[in-house]
Amino acid sequence: MDVAVIGLGAMGQGLARSLLKAGHKVRVWNRSPGPAESLMREGARRAKDPAEAFQADAVVTMLANDQAVRAVILDEALSHPPGHHVVHVMASTISVGLCRTLEEVHRDAGVDFIAAPVLGRPDVAAAGELNILVAGDEKAVRRVQPLLDAIGKKTWRVGDQPHQASVTKLAANFMLASAMEALAEAFALVRRHDLDAHILNEVLTNTLFAAPAYKVYGPLIADQRFEPVGFKLTLGLKDVRLALEAGEAAGAPLPFASILRDNFIDAIAHGDGDKDWSAVAKVAARRAGLA
Amino acid sequence: MDVAVIGLGAMGQGLARSLLKAGHKVRVWNRSPGPAESLMREGARRAKDPAEAFQADAVVTMLANDQAVRAVILDEALSHPPGHHVVHVMASTISVGLCRTLEEVHRDAGVDFIAAPVLGRPDVAAAGELNILVAGDEKAVRRVQPLLDAIGKKTWRVGDQPHQASVTKLAANFMLASAMEALAEAFALVRRHDLDAHILNEVLTNTLFAAPAYKVYGPLIADQRFEPVGFKLTLGLKDVRLALEAGEAAGAPLPFASILRDNFIDAIAHGDGDKDWSAVAKVAARRAGLA
Amino acid sequence: MDVAVIGLGAMGQGLARSLLKAGHKVRVWNRSPGPAESLMREGARRAKDPAEAFQADAVVTMLANDQAVRAVILDEALSHPPGHHVVHVMASTISVGLCRTLEEVHRDAGVDFIAAPVLGRPDVAAAGELNILVAGDEKAVRRVQPLLDAIGKKTWRVGDQPHQASVTKLAANFMLASAMEALAEAFALVRRHDLDAHILNEVLTNTLFAAPAYKVYGPLIADQRFEPVGFKLTLGLKDVRLALEAGEAAGAPLPFASILRDNFIDAIAHGDGDKDWSAVAKVAARRAGLA
Amino acid sequence: MDVAVIGLGAMGQGLARSLLKAGHKVRVWNRSPGPAESLMREGARRAKDPAEAFQADAVVTMLANDQAVRAVILDEALSHPPGHHVVHVMASTISVGLCRTLEEVHRDAGVDFIAAPVLGRPDVAAAGELNILVAGDEKAVRRVQPLLDAIGKKTWRVGDQPHQASVTKLAANFMLASAMEALAEAFALVRRHDLDAHILNEVLTNTLFAAPAYKVYGPLIADQRFEPVGFKLTLGLKDVRLALEAGEAAGAPLPFASILRDNFIDAIAHGDGDKDWSAVAKVAARRAGLA
Repeated sequence: MDVAVIGLGAMGQGLARSLLKAGHKVRVWNRSPGPAESLMREGARRAKDPAEAFQADAVVTMLANDQAVRAVILDEALSHPPGHHVVHVMASTISVGLCRTLEEVHRDAGVDFIAAPVLGRPDVAAAGELNILVAGDEKAVRRVQPLLDAIGKKTWRVGDQPHQASVTKLAANFMLASAMEALAEAFALVRRHDLDAHILNEVLTNTLFAAPAYKVYGPLIADQRFEPVGFKLTLGLKDVRLALEAGEAAGAPLPFASILRDNFIDAIAHGDGDKDWSAVAKVAARRAGLA
Repeated sequence: MDVAVIGLGAMGQGLARSLLKAGHKVRVWNRSPGPAESLMREGARRAKDPAEAFQADAVVTMLANDQAVRAVILDEALSHPPGHHVVHVMASTISVGLCRTLEEVHRDAGVDFIAAPVLGRPDVAAAGELNILVAGDEKAVRRVQPLLDAIGKKTWRVGDQPHQASVTKLAANFMLASAMEALAEAFALVRRHDLDAHILNEVLTNTLFAAPAYKVYGPLIADQRFEPVGFKLTLGLKDVRLALEAGEAAGAPLPFASILRDNFIDAIAHGDGDKDWSAVAKVAARRAGLA
Repeated sequence: MDVAVIGLGAMGQGLARSLLKAGHKVRVWNRSPGPAESLMREGARRAKDPAEAFQADAVVTMLANDQAVRAVILDEALSHPPGHHVVHVMASTISVGLCRTLEEVHRDAGVDFIAAPVLGRPDVAAAGELNILVAGDEKAVRRVQPLLDAIGKKTWRVGDQPHQASVTKLAANFMLASAMEALAEAFALVRRHDLDAHILNEVLTNTLFAAPAYKVYGPLIADQRFEPVGFKLTLGLKDVRLALEAGEAAGAPLPFASILRDNFIDAIAHGDGDKDWSAVAKVAARRAGLA
Repeated sequence: MDVAVIGLGAMGQGLARSLLKAGHKVRVWNRSPGPAESLMREGARRAKDPAEAFQADAVVTMLANDQAVRAVILDEALSHPPGHHVVHVMASTISVGLCRTLEEVHRDAGVDFIAAPVLGRPDVAAAGELNILVAGDEKAVRRVQPLLDAIGKKTWRVGDQPHQASVTKLAANFMLASAMEALAEAFALVRRHDLDAHILNEVLTNTLFAAPAYKVYGPLIADQRFEPVGFKLTLGLKDVRLALEAGEAAGAPLPFASILRDNFIDAIAHGDGDKDWSAVAKVAARRAGLA
């Protein structure tokens, strides 16, 4: 399939590589030219601008945030309708509000639009082990299924409207952040009773909580080891804020998310914004008077 | 081993049966006489009072709450020291404050005291699949290890002081309640965006959250099915309150636990106190205007 | 002074009338033409568009929200610099972020810009009893002081940068909403102990809390009387959200504001979005199982 | 009237002095003998024990907390019914649960019991300016009205059952602590936008919040001046906890009180437990990265 990848951060490069490996014809575009070059050595072709990327049969976008999506998709790629059948697969996590706007704009431009945010960090993407949450028109999803199969190990169909995949992804990230905060408070509690957090961590992650979320973050938090950065704390705050906005728009109060938002802000005010988002756990420890 | 079991609710009966099956000589006592009878048909002997139960080599107690422990252990069993070497294994979840008091009282009475609260509902106990959190003097623990092996599938040594096992158990229950609340909020969020909570549940429990805590409670909450009762909601509130008290005594604020406490009270005010504690999830749904 | 008023809702009309009464030459503009007409009968002149309004020596704007300010000020009034000396007095409450943007845009357009949000509902405005929070360049403030004196009974100078007045106004509204929530919780508590909330209200508002905030909202909440609407609940949510955003931008977690946000969303999900913002008090009552 | 005062801390001494000044015959008792001596020089007589104090026509108790009330009233004074008509006026703030227990015990002992907690710090007590919240049997209240008039400037009748006065007092203290937290968050917000908290304080306390609660605590918090101690922070936590317990017992979630509890614990964990309770405001400042 003739496919373009727009947005070549760590995640986007992983996607492009998976598509190349699966034998697809891949063109790539990125605002800054560097990341495209190594991919060109691996067989990709550079698109000169987002509009040219949309001349492919399908476009996978992995842009950093709402602002980048507005600039690249709304202001550039779709400012002139591509004029042929193309499916836009948006893989990044954006706000539900922008996703709804994109639904309309794509409809007007005659472009099929599906949202396909992924669960997993860059290393998971590189290994082709991502879980993909897909929402959008069923026929469009079927057309790009070979691409989704190249990118991830499993596609989860969550709804017919693209913004529903955004909501689902935000809900999953909220669950992760909640797991971290619960661990952080539990560890602060036992540490203040002269127990080693690692013991509680071992009990939990081998029994009731023997799942990737806890097996990944439990040890990081017990060790207070927040580098290297898998997902930056400021981006964690952004996703929690997007979940809260999605709740506000739909009429759902999210008290845990409110606590998380306060704590991410506290963490940033204490200089931890560029650490891994699990560093939010330092807040519970600090508030308990623990180093 | 000559062992007594005090407190014959569903959990206590399970423990007594496991001990009988493992070939131990078991005497039993319960405030109301009914539960002892079926155990007597299975080979147990009835102790006439708590003090007589303490004539065994080891006593396992599974009493409902602080009040019952005060009445049975402080006011009755230990009002006169047993006068021989006995190890008291307290299997129920009590407050950290009472556990500290019990440490002193047992020391004065010359009775070895270890705390061994368990993770698992009655069906897990009956299957001998409990995880046991043990804290106390190492020699005392070694003496009763055969009993612990009969009761559970694994013993986790968490500390030297019995109250540390109470803290650990309260931390684990707090983690469970936090998982429920996170699920409840996430489900309310997606439902208000016209998604079925079961889809999110399936994604979560097969990926990042593929652990017993979520596999047990996710479906109950997605189904809004809060009966039969595994653990009563009012007892859930009690454990969250004990976690908060343990935090207050040690200097650890627990904002998630505070939210949980408010929500359990809300649930009880709406008539759900006798349902399974996962019914706390109705609060997030109700606040979002969902039935 | 030759002054224009843009935005003729209940508050804006009050301001225009106060300026007319003080003898100023007033031109008015509003998106929908109706509100201008009665003011014209009282001596005002209609400006044909926002740009013409900016031909006055000073412009007072009282637009509903960020969106209206963007549309009227950024897209229309200042799209072409007015070309003479004019002071823009922004009296409405907007986001701190937009206020910072406006600081730059006005500088580039050569227009003096001060923020002057007011404390008080329309009836207070009509009586000329507003308190005005002013921030901006000192000379510009001195130039328009006669206008401020016509509008309010007192001007509070809070800072040199206009956005600081926005922050101060948002802080004051947050204080008001916090007072309401505290009253709501206290009343729910005493009502569940079979006491009449009016008694507590009387004690509080005659002793420690004998201040307008409590004397206005205490009786409304004790009576559960949320109409007529002084300030719409959805606007209350907007202001709390703006306070939270201002906190996030500057690094200040605001846990009370987070609770308020959750409760305003809860209130809206239960159909109270168009009531007075004090209807947020219904949430505490409902959660306590009170009608 | 022949009246006894039990509990001679700063508040109790103030009450005894006011009663002496009003011409009553006053006997006094305190666990440690020191405080009674200066009162004896002013005309008071020392009671040898709590039971002798209960030989007066009325007894005013101002004991520090539940534990002291249990020890002095339940275990000593009422262990033998006094055998004549006496009215017990309990002026201290205790838990609602203990107050309910006391209702029963007094009934059984044939002693009239009214609760009369006061609003005001020791300096207010010394000036006879206290507001008294009274609940109990109407005839008993009438009998001791001369004493209440000597102690305070105004008596507020809140209910027929003594524990209702406890609830009301706890609600009032919760309101005070909420006002402090709201001030603390608002000040942190404006300070992070380079504004002086004193300006916001001046605006608020001269307009919407021109009431004693804000005029007392606003300047202390703006100055970050938490000594001398009017009411110790650990006692503030105690009262918030009692409010939460009263809410739990009656079915009222109190989310603001939960935040307060977390913040008081945070303050104590950072060494501020012995400061004035307004030092809880340091938490909001610290979390915002402010000194």
